[in-house]
Amino acid sequence: MRIIGNHVSPYARKVLVALAIKRIAFEIDPIIPFFGTDDFTRLSPLRRIPVLVDGDVTLCDSSVICEYLDEAYPAPPLMPAAPADRARARWLEEYADTRLGDVIIWRLFQERVIKPSVWRTPADETVIATATDQDLPGIMNWLEDEAPAAAFMFGAAPMTVDITFACFFRNAALAGWGPDAARWPRAVAWIARCQEIPEFAATIPIEQLFMTARRADRNRVLRDAGLAIAAETVGGEAPRKGVMPI
Amino acid sequence: MRIIGNHVSPYARKVLVALAIKRIAFEIDPIIPFFGTDDFTRLSPLRRIPVLVDGDVTLCDSSVICEYLDEAYPAPPLMPAAPADRARARWLEEYADTRLGDVIIWRLFQERVIKPSVWRTPADETVIATATDQDLPGIMNWLEDEAPAAAFMFGAAPMTVDITFACFFRNAALAGWGPDAARWPRAVAWIARCQEIPEFAATIPIEQLFMTARRADRNRVLRDAGLAIAAETVGGEAPRKGVMPI
Repeated sequence: MRIIGNHVSPYARKVLVALAIKRIAFEIDPIIPFFGTDDFTRLSPLRRIPVLVDGDVTLCDSSVICEYLDEAYPAPPLMPAAPADRARARWLEEYADTRLGDVIIWRLFQERVIKPSVWRTPADETVIATATDQDLPGIMNWLEDEAPAAAFMFGAAPMTVDITFACFFRNAALAGWGPDAARWPRAVAWIARCQEIPEFAATIPIEQLFMTARRADRNRVLRDAGLAIAAETVGGEAPRKGVMPI
Repeated sequence: MRIIGNHVSPYARKVLVALAIKRIAFEIDPIIPFFGTDDFTRLSPLRRIPVLVDGDVTLCDSSVICEYLDEAYPAPPLMPAAPADRARARWLEEYADTRLGDVIIWRLFQERVIKPSVWRTPADETVIATATDQDLPGIMNWLEDEAPAAAFMFGAAPMTVDITFACFFRNAALAGWGPDAARWPRAVAWIARCQEIPEFAATIPIEQLFMTARRADRNRVLRDAGLAIAAETVGGEAPRKGVMPI
């Protein structure tokens, strides 16, 4: 099984944590989507990561991939059992992928991390201030009502939805923002529990290697850290403007 | 079971066709999301339609709702059986909801229908030309490879994914655009088959009543046509700017 994507992307990280929890071996082509070649566009027509290639099966979209993993490799489960719970899990994940994706990734993280590191342009502080002062407090107010008082959203074991939120708030932290534990105690404690899942915590040092290594050295550094790096890559030499890497 | 949404929305129509195929009785609160009240925002924090309320279960997002319906009311199935097929169905639906949503709804239909009818502003013909001359041909080229040569995506019976594409291309038609059958014969024939599904075809006269009735008369007209209109509504008197009705 091959994953195209990297540990800094919240969508790719979600899949990588799911694979680790399910003890599924994989190799990885750790590209940044902006750098994808035409072969990447053929595999992922929306130029999104992650992409999963499992024999004849090629899949895009982290939610689709996680549902596939849960159906093809059922143990341990990453979805609750009852239809109403499964539906709520899917809806919360969709909320995160859409709304947290919009605010945390495409405003906060884009301005603070992607613009300087990929496009070599400065951050727009007005966009960041709107995200942290208006959008994120609204999201946190909503999440404080949804978050579980103990353990995880659907009981003692973490599900895909718990991993999903952990990933987005990790990107918020990488962009220098975290929610106030005094203002949203239940949500903040739940996010911390999600980020303490061993398979999630194990992604942090890899993410740091990815972010600090020079691009030319990245795959070697990640291989030295124990990752099975794919022999083939769909990554190119320079980022492309005008694509739709969501 | 109550559905909040209307037959013109491709996302709401998808759910309404699924309910019809499964012979599930429902009542409808046929609002336009821009007109939603604060109660609508509480039920649907992204201010999207459709919303499903089934006893204690309140769900947003058409894909989440259709998966719930298929798990809670399995016959007839609207998802294929094998994990790899289910994953492909979900990915094609996600592609449609994202990419066709972006181009057909938020460029073509928004300019041609929503702006004049909801916001009383003229269409931007440049936006429409980009959608019809650049984006839609690219989408159709991709879809020509994905569309089945006969019947539906996963065999003799239509699934949620077939309904999904039927809905988006109906909105394209309402905005005055249709794909060229000489250029994309396989995709166009498949879209036609999907739109001939009786439960889909039955939505067309209702959609026409919705689009032609004055807003104050709409619910009465729809009730006269046989729809079970909900006694309560989360629709307001005027549209709101600055919301996120995707």
